[in-house]
Amino acid sequence: MTPAGSRASVPGAPEVVGRLRALGATVATAESLTGGLVCAALVGVPGASTVVRGGVVAYAPEVKHEALGVPAEVVRRHGTVSRECAEAMAAGASRMLHADWAVATTGVAGPDPSEGRPVGTVHVAVCGHRDGEHITAHRALRLQGDRAQIRTASVSAALRLLHDTLPPTLSDRGCTVGDHPGETARSTSC
Amino acid sequence: MTPAGSRASVPGAPEVVGRLRALGATVATAESLTGGLVCAALVGVPGASTVVRGGVVAYAPEVKHEALGVPAEVVRRHGTVSRECAEAMAAGASRMLHADWAVATTGVAGPDPSEGRPVGTVHVAVCGHRDGEHITAHRALRLQGDRAQIRTASVSAALRLLHDTLPPTLSDRGCTVGDHPGETARSTSC
Repeated sequence: MTPAGSRASVPGAPEVVGRLRALGATVATAESLTGGLVCAALVGVPGASTVVRGGVVAYAPEVKHEALGVPAEVVRRHGTVSRECAEAMAAGASRMLHADWAVATTGVAGPDPSEGRPVGTVHVAVCGHRDGEHITAHRALRLQGDRAQIRTASVSAALRLLHDTLPPTLSDRGCTVGDHPGETARSTSC
Repeated sequence: MTPAGSRASVPGAPEVVGRLRALGATVATAESLTGGLVCAALVGVPGASTVVRGGVVAYAPEVKHEALGVPAEVVRRHGTVSRECAEAMAAGASRMLHADWAVATTGVAGPDPSEGRPVGTVHVAVCGHRDGEHITAHRALRLQGDRAQIRTASVSAALRLLHDTLPPTLSDRGCTVGDHPGETARSTSC
């Protein structure tokens, strides 16, 4: 068994940190089912201290409201496993930690369904600024596997969405984290 | 390479979650160099949702003050790599996330020294209530290894200190996470 911290880096994290460094931008995380693994993946990259502000793990539902400022109305209407909650979590982390960009995860890792959503239902969201406008990107996932596999896949999806939403830089042309079927992105207030 | 999230659990985390469940107590985390791995270790244990409130990764020095309420005077006098900062981080997480117990990590993972402290200097702290009084426990570590090894050892030390500071329960008699040379514990306001 390999200790979680003994890995040099998580796939995708170096590309995200590299792009943020090239942009001179900072990032924060807001995590539920991934429990801190997205932030840990970013921090695991040497040089992360210049871009990673920190993150909030809002594991208990009420922490999403209390610590990240997710509106109670969002939770009441859409539940915590929703696009709306993921986007509000990202916006809250960006605001709270004064970060240029933020990435959020929320979903059902199992073993039991939650809020009527089946195991493997995951939402990841990113917010930030690109070309002078506020950006929110979102991706809905239906993952299979056990609790650990669902969390791992969620971390990868969050990093991929963040990478693909960040403005490309000259230095990372030709560098991709992966494709992203099913992703949707829209411009909105962040 | 094993993805961080694919592990069933981190050694020590099941014992901590089990003891918290037996106590009916909640926990929060405040992390710097471990970047979210302590919280992820706890969340990785099935049944964690009944005890884990969440956590804050305060990676940038100013986030320790802004998000966790670490007094600026503590940072100015003792630096962020100090017993005082670790204890203030734990107290801040407990307060912010309304958790009965909190565990904090701060230190130098490398590759370079920080604030005049050598690589491998780590402080972990726990705060909570036991037998009607406020408790703060602290352990100073001098770790060797690379960046990832130092983080892994810090996660283990944080979980061990939390476990050993929690009141024992009938159900976990005979269960230990490990020994803890050099640990100090004192009663103080949390």
